[in-house]
Amino acid sequence: MPTIASKEVRLKSRPIGLPKASDFDLATVQIAEPGPGEVQVKNLYMTVDPYMRGRMYDRPSYVPPFQIGEPLQGGAIGQVTASNDPKFVVGDLVNSMFGWREAYVAPASALQKVETHGLPPQAFLGVVGMPGMTAYVGLLKIAALKAGDVVFVSAAAGAVGAIVCQIAKIKGCTVIGSAGGAEKIAYLKEIGVDHAIDYKAVPNLTAALMEAAPTGIDVYFENVGGEHLEAAITAARPFARFALCGMISQYNETGEPKGPSNIIQAVGKRIRMEGFIVSDSADMQPAFVKDMADWIGSGQLKYRETIDDGVENAPGAFVKLFSGENIGKMLVKLS
Amino acid sequence: MPTIASKEVRLKSRPIGLPKASDFDLATVQIAEPGPGEVQVKNLYMTVDPYMRGRMYDRPSYVPPFQIGEPLQGGAIGQVTASNDPKFVVGDLVNSMFGWREAYVAPASALQKVETHGLPPQAFLGVVGMPGMTAYVGLLKIAALKAGDVVFVSAAAGAVGAIVCQIAKIKGCTVIGSAGGAEKIAYLKEIGVDHAIDYKAVPNLTAALMEAAPTGIDVYFENVGGEHLEAAITAARPFARFALCGMISQYNETGEPKGPSNIIQAVGKRIRMEGFIVSDSADMQPAFVKDMADWIGSGQLKYRETIDDGVENAPGAFVKLFSGENIGKMLVKLS
Repeated sequence: MPTIASKEVRLKSRPIGLPKASDFDLATVQIAEPGPGEVQVKNLYMTVDPYMRGRMYDRPSYVPPFQIGEPLQGGAIGQVTASNDPKFVVGDLVNSMFGWREAYVAPASALQKVETHGLPPQAFLGVVGMPGMTAYVGLLKIAALKAGDVVFVSAAAGAVGAIVCQIAKIKGCTVIGSAGGAEKIAYLKEIGVDHAIDYKAVPNLTAALMEAAPTGIDVYFENVGGEHLEAAITAARPFARFALCGMISQYNETGEPKGPSNIIQAVGKRIRMEGFIVSDSADMQPAFVKDMADWIGSGQLKYRETIDDGVENAPGAFVKLFSGENIGKMLVKLS
Repeated sequence: MPTIASKEVRLKSRPIGLPKASDFDLATVQIAEPGPGEVQVKNLYMTVDPYMRGRMYDRPSYVPPFQIGEPLQGGAIGQVTASNDPKFVVGDLVNSMFGWREAYVAPASALQKVETHGLPPQAFLGVVGMPGMTAYVGLLKIAALKAGDVVFVSAAAGAVGAIVCQIAKIKGCTVIGSAGGAEKIAYLKEIGVDHAIDYKAVPNLTAALMEAAPTGIDVYFENVGGEHLEAAITAARPFARFALCGMISQYNETGEPKGPSNIIQAVGKRIRMEGFIVSDSADMQPAFVKDMADWIGSGQLKYRETIDDGVENAPGAFVKLFSGENIGKMLVKLS
């Protein structure tokens, strides 16, 4: 049970607007041998997710803010290198929130053993992890999806959006996906999206959406905010349901963001807009894992990853989420 | 069964911004004797409601637009003056959508007989009519009110708002009401509102709301929009429910209204915002009438009316809704 050197990324300063390299520090620490009830883990992959931007602000939220001088946190898949707890043995794959570092020692209770069911381990940070579960919960529970719905998905080529699109197709819906750039539009077509809108190329997003959905939309899966939310409100049919998952266009906003000027339409159209956080629906986890295993196994659901290499490149990978450079799940390979 | 002369208000032009006297015409017509299956009615009272502003625009909505040159429509309570249908006799009180006129003849099927249960007839245009039912449905069904909730109500001294405040108190909630001016604030205290905010007098509505609700609000009953909606979002506790009933601050807006710049908070706080129209919940009518009769009978629920006189003054009474001159239900006495 040797000590391991581990590089880790720490928050140096709270970013203003889009995070910069100088907002982060890289440090090397020695990871001790595990004490009683502890486990030592070497990470294989870490995830970067848009919600982490919120934790860089010093404000109350559903998760506490990151602390200056401390390593960042987030999902990571690792392999046990030493165990001082009967529940884990060397070689076990574990899921934890100790991302942004190459290795760590932690109480066994903070780790979740991963059974891969034949999937690559990093899939548990994406399609069968938090982002996939977010798509599943948002679409089936919050938006109460039903067969025949016309579904609009923003950031449709992202880690969550691409899964939303495919679940909606599996459930017998018409899907309109919005993404930026030709490569993403091609990907949307590949995963079966009925109408792919390149929001960077169309002169008017609302007009493009109403052309794709001439009779309106029943469900909107909100990942972007701003102009996308306004377009969805205008295109909404009576009794439309909006699952508010995130609004990435606003995460780095330093001024006052523009709210949806047409929100008054929510009254006459009886639109239901509901924010959600995936962790509130942990009870859906078994159904999620079973459905995803079936859908991936049968080839009905595909997933894609964009993988950067090395913990020192994690801040850069994180920033790519906001410039939209990733297709599917953005990951960082750590060893 | 004589013919009756009846003055009626017609839409002359579609208003731009706040309606003006010149947008309406007054005409006198002769109301014929009722044909087979028809009833002749003299109106006692008509209602003016904010939603009517929406029908003055030429656009698709949940009710069709008013037509230029035609009399306006809306709730009215009248008395049968001649009947050619076995279901009605002279003297019956009837509720109809033939407001904005002194008398009319209509098919019996378009009329609803009113049993007053000892209440004055015009109460069926207010507290036990559409506005009261709107309060009941919005609060109990859409916002899923429960005992102990902290409830924020905008336009709290209005026909709907004042009923919302009192139902919430009856159900064991803390109520914060917003209204403009000292007279309305006094009225809110009279009906048991815990914290009354004079939005015209406070420098910052959000700060005033957070002072009144230091631990946040669970329910927001939305009648106003704009700054009120933003304040409610900022003050919302996790899992807050917003019943979107109307946004009167925006009905006469000629430019682009300002949307809620902080709507992103709906994600992390898991706020549910839901628009509704009272007519979708007709199944709640029997429970509503029973509860209201009980509450009014026991003195737990009070109501107030602002009554103008004469159909020729109906456009002026309507415009008062937007300048906020009414307390409680705004009505026009027709005979």
